Amino acid sequence: MTATSGPDLAVLPSDLPVVTREPMVPGGFLVGGMSAGIKASGRPDLAMIRVVNGPAPVAGVFTKNAFAAAPVKLCRAHLKASHPSGDGRSGWTNGLVSTSGSANAATGAAGERDQAAIAGFLAEALGTTVERTLGLSTGLIGTRLPLDKVAAGIRTLVGRLSADPTALAAAAEGIRTTDSRAKMATATVEILGLAGAPRTVRISGIAKGVGMIHPRMATTLSVLMTDAAVTAPEVLSAILSPVAARTWNQLSVDGDTSTNDTVLLIASGAAGSSPAAPGNAAFDALRLGVEAVARDLARQQAADGEGATTLLTCQVTGALDDANARAVARAVISSSLVKAAFHGRDPNWGRIAGAAGNARLTDAAVLQAAGFSQEEASRRGGSPATLDPARLRIAIAGHLVYDGPAGGPATFDKGVVRESLDAPEVLIRLELGLGDGLGEAFGCDLTEQYVIENSEYST
Amino acid sequence: MTATSGPDLAVLPSDLPVVTREPMVPGGFLVGGMSAGIKASGRPDLAMIRVVNGPAPVAGVFTKNAFAAAPVKLCRAHLKASHPSGDGRSGWTNGLVSTSGSANAATGAAGERDQAAIAGFLAEALGTTVERTLGLSTGLIGTRLPLDKVAAGIRTLVGRLSADPTALAAAAEGIRTTDSRAKMATATVEILGLAGAPRTVRISGIAKGVGMIHPRMATTLSVLMTDAAVTAPEVLSAILSPVAARTWNQLSVDGDTSTNDTVLLIASGAAGSSPAAPGNAAFDALRLGVEAVARDLARQQAADGEGATTLLTCQVTGALDDANARAVARAVISSSLVKAAFHGRDPNWGRIAGAAGNARLTDAAVLQAAGFSQEEASRRGGSPATLDPARLRIAIAGHLVYDGPAGGPATFDKGVVRESLDAPEVLIRLELGLGDGLGEAFGCDLTEQYVIENSEYST
Repeated sequence: MTATSGPDLAVLPSDLPVVTREPMVPGGFLVGGMSAGIKASGRPDLAMIRVVNGPAPVAGVFTKNAFAAAPVKLCRAHLKASHPSGDGRSGWTNGLVSTSGSANAATGAAGERDQAAIAGFLAEALGTTVERTLGLSTGLIGTRLPLDKVAAGIRTLVGRLSADPTALAAAAEGIRTTDSRAKMATATVEILGLAGAPRTVRISGIAKGVGMIHPRMATTLSVLMTDAAVTAPEVLSAILSPVAARTWNQLSVDGDTSTNDTVLLIASGAAGSSPAAPGNAAFDALRLGVEAVARDLARQQAADGEGATTLLTCQVTGALDDANARAVARAVISSSLVKAAFHGRDPNWGRIAGAAGNARLTDAAVLQAAGFSQEEASRRGGSPATLDPARLRIAIAGHLVYDGPAGGPATFDKGVVRESLDAPEVLIRLELGLGDGLGEAFGCDLTEQYVIENSEYST
Repeated sequence: MTATSGPDLAVLPSDLPVVTREPMVPGGFLVGGMSAGIKASGRPDLAMIRVVNGPAPVAGVFTKNAFAAAPVKLCRAHLKASHPSGDGRSGWTNGLVSTSGSANAATGAAGERDQAAIAGFLAEALGTTVERTLGLSTGLIGTRLPLDKVAAGIRTLVGRLSADPTALAAAAEGIRTTDSRAKMATATVEILGLAGAPRTVRISGIAKGVGMIHPRMATTLSVLMTDAAVTAPEVLSAILSPVAARTWNQLSVDGDTSTNDTVLLIASGAAGSSPAAPGNAAFDALRLGVEAVARDLARQQAADGEGATTLLTCQVTGALDDANARAVARAVISSSLVKAAFHGRDPNWGRIAGAAGNARLTDAAVLQAAGFSQEEASRRGGSPATLDPARLRIAIAGHLVYDGPAGGPATFDKGVVRESLDAPEVLIRLELGLGDGLGEAFGCDLTEQYVIENSEYST
């Protein structure tokens, strides 16, 4: 990210490529979605992605919930089994299946057997081995998947997979739960080909998730595909883990971390670009493209948070370092009182200050994923963020509302600020005045509708 | 606390004395409350407590928010100034004043000057030195206190202080903000007197706070008075800090930690009991009485959470240790999804399991207050709680809903459980099957009314 000065302007991550939300499938993939009858409503509940010339390298980031769902355990095991010499977070895959309607979480040994059976159906359909398949699931916790319907769905869908934009839209539909709309994003970057001429590389992602969303490793389900080439699966982990720390881990809808959170990044190599490896130009270009897509999907998820009417983006500059900036941004965006205030279009900077004052660095695992050494991550994980009220400045939607160096509360026209909050997106800016650290976080307002939806969900 | 077996029964903290919520003033104190005109509504907004034969020993636990309000900073400074050789958390006091309507937080140097001026008014009224006074405040963040009204209020109220029950009720009224009712609790214990005969010792507390409540050091405003004697101010810290870790730190309404959180414990010695000191019987009796009052006040606060219709108590047994048990109980009670489910009277154990799976131990400072060594607290603070889904059992309102050892989801009559949730208090029980650790936490359901109140509060 590049900083601009002052607390009144957005800190645009201007080094990221532009993103489109039109459906686009990168080369080397076939995708699709359909209704397999898992959901009683008959809405789409099955999605598949196939690598044409598989297996392809894949990296994953998963929930840290102790109640990790059966598909999460299966993904972790298959990454290891398909790449025994790897880093445990990357491997090889021919394709994946995602079910929605039932999370297959807290279903015990029976649920794990179900997920293994689904992997078997998929392996058979794709003509590959079980450990080269991956599975995702989302929906109600504690219910079993209807195996016969999933098996029939996989058999039908494998014959319908395509590279058409409509097929990606169908896949994005197939992973939805309470999302009000499907979420897709694509970035395009240029990477030199093996022959020396520039090749166009595409990075496309689909995502779901509008509740049980809170920063801790990946949140929600997201699958990113690229036709870039990489030298090894570990290259994809080296890109995905720090990107997740800056994007999905900075997303909060309701403070709950799901049992099924999964983000996958698969590289088909079909674009003919020179292989990315840490330190080379292909790696840097691919990393920016992945981050652009991840950031855009995270913002789509925040904007569609259950019951939300406004996307809240909090950008923090002047922190001691980026980890401190991200901690403060996350604390502001996670505060129920801040979220309720913005629902009321109330420029209540006192609640923003109060929330910032409680900020804690993320836990050691995320700090390490973001690039800290194990020792430093372990020492700093969960510790209070550094903040000095006398140096802090706060702006809401471009209006300075708190100016620590000038003595505290700023004079502003409440009616004018209030009016500027009546928008689909509101920017909260904090300048800490302590250093060069930058960071942002994404959330939404807290509404009566959130409570209504979530007090009626399972019954 | 004493454990009973199985997940279907409440873990009663049966070693605590019985508590009454009738107003009672321990010997050696004069109290009172009134409307000083700080609130535009004309509702009570000033409370005072005076030690008759002061100064008396006092201990405090305060917010860890970086935006700590002016009264919190003043209390910390006065504890140190009145007891330079002390532990920094205890000192000597002749009395305190509490204002409500304006929090005097994020008001910069001007707010600190205001609070010092208020301490001056109080010292003059009580005939003591400034450093032997304490101040509390609660209300809107970022607004200044009307000094002239506070000064006039203190001058009027000091002449009206009394030991009558109605005076304590008035003080409890004077610290309210959005509370729907005043909160008081009293426990009585027997401690041998200096002459050898048993003396009746009273511990009485008042509390306020129904929003911006989340575990981290003390939450909300609470003042506890006792007529017990102690050998030194540090004895009160040795009682108050671990009690706060087990009670107020286990209370969550909305996940926000206030800028003004303050809990004070003052001992007048008027009961003529033998002085409490760590290791003696007087200390143990006083500790139990303080914990009983603290626990009851915390439960009153949870039950009166903004918009709440149900008090949620989560009790956890079978954890590796008490810190793990408290972490799991706190995670369940803090989950927006669990809170919303109980508002819908939905026995959604999947959300309970999901929330438990995210539990983290509290931070190092609270662990240390609860009795861990600095090294162990620093190592374990913020780390994931230990949980094994295969051993976990969950009961809601006495009904077993999840039985890990038996394979997971239990069979239960949803209609029957649903009906038992339509109560002013619901017990959620988790048996972890891992050890002897016990703990509990207090919260409330999340309702549309919470959102409505908090999207309209400051405007």
